[in-house]
Amino acid sequence: MNGKSNDSDLRAVKISESTVRRLSIYLRLLQDLEGTGQETASSEDLAERAGTTAAQVRKDLSAFGSFGKRGLGYSVAELLRTLREILGLDHRWKVALVGAGKIGSALFTYRNFQRRGFEIDAVFDTDPVKVGQLWGSSEILDDSLMETELRQRHIDIVVIAVPSDAAQAVADRVVAAGVEAILNFAPVRLRVPASVAVRNVDMVVEMEGLAFALSSR
Amino acid sequence: MNGKSNDSDLRAVKISESTVRRLSIYLRLLQDLEGTGQETASSEDLAERAGTTAAQVRKDLSAFGSFGKRGLGYSVAELLRTLREILGLDHRWKVALVGAGKIGSALFTYRNFQRRGFEIDAVFDTDPVKVGQLWGSSEILDDSLMETELRQRHIDIVVIAVPSDAAQAVADRVVAAGVEAILNFAPVRLRVPASVAVRNVDMVVEMEGLAFALSSR
Repeated sequence: MNGKSNDSDLRAVKISESTVRRLSIYLRLLQDLEGTGQETASSEDLAERAGTTAAQVRKDLSAFGSFGKRGLGYSVAELLRTLREILGLDHRWKVALVGAGKIGSALFTYRNFQRRGFEIDAVFDTDPVKVGQLWGSSEILDDSLMETELRQRHIDIVVIAVPSDAAQAVADRVVAAGVEAILNFAPVRLRVPASVAVRNVDMVVEMEGLAFALSSR
Repeated sequence: MNGKSNDSDLRAVKISESTVRRLSIYLRLLQDLEGTGQETASSEDLAERAGTTAAQVRKDLSAFGSFGKRGLGYSVAELLRTLREILGLDHRWKVALVGAGKIGSALFTYRNFQRRGFEIDAVFDTDPVKVGQLWGSSEILDDSLMETELRQRHIDIVVIAVPSDAAQAVADRVVAAGVEAILNFAPVRLRVPASVAVRNVDMVVEMEGLAFALSSR
């Protein structure tokens, strides 16, 4: 039993979206444990955090080699390293934010992004009042510079936090500039080529799911 | 073909979580169309917005009676009314926000919540500097008042926007106060009784899904 593995092996394992979500949550618990100096974690600890079963945890992790020691649990340091590698968090990702509104601002200062290797390198807005303002050490850039700056800064991921009627046009420009991953906060499903990964964070849809759950009782 | 239906019929239809999400997105397009004065919408329009097929739209909507007229499409007003009823948006929901940080603040001012019938009636925080501050006409209340205020204000839905290590304790108190729906922004899966509906908005998990997509290419 050991956690050794080579990069190409790990990446070759097919993983479902729901597994990726769970790995992401396991990673978070491990980071917390690392912070407190705890050296091992049980599958039960991981299961509790992720709202799943210990059996599911063991199944998820055994796909990448066998990390647990019976009765001892998983080595926090070893599992952290492996999960970071699997999730592609073993290096930093360059992120740009389009839309310097309230949500954009909350994201910009969201420490959990930085802690996980996501650095917001550029912020764009169309509002002449906002353009030129400093957010931390980042100057808010004019929207018209987007394509040039995305390329020059080798941005990996763009976060779209603009109103829904502007979101598709932004996505089209981002894709044309060669970016292949979008985190979309606008309440609309974006149309992009199959080669581009999109994840949506849609707070209103989640709220309405709750309203539906309450009213269908 | 007509949109008449009675409430109990609509509510009796079993709907999957993914269907509820699509209905929520259809509703959004219809609201936009209503704003521009457009009277009909095609299943293709609805499909495009929701990133699905026209056949799926027709299937989703036909489960609640048949609202479309061949060649004319759906009546925007009629379908809006029906979807609001199905989703439980035909009345206002009373919402409380726990955590007056950056994310809480962005949510508080998020117009799309109000437009959809979600009113934030109370805001709680533990920080003595924040307690007593006014957000709009809402005074930020001391965390210790949470249980009492949730009951007195008949809060339907609580939004949890506190750090992950505080989230479970807040959820326990919210549940003990009789609230049955939680929108959770803390990056942790909450443990609640089966009678309580929880939806998670987890931005880091979505970002890591993108990192994984990029790095597994």
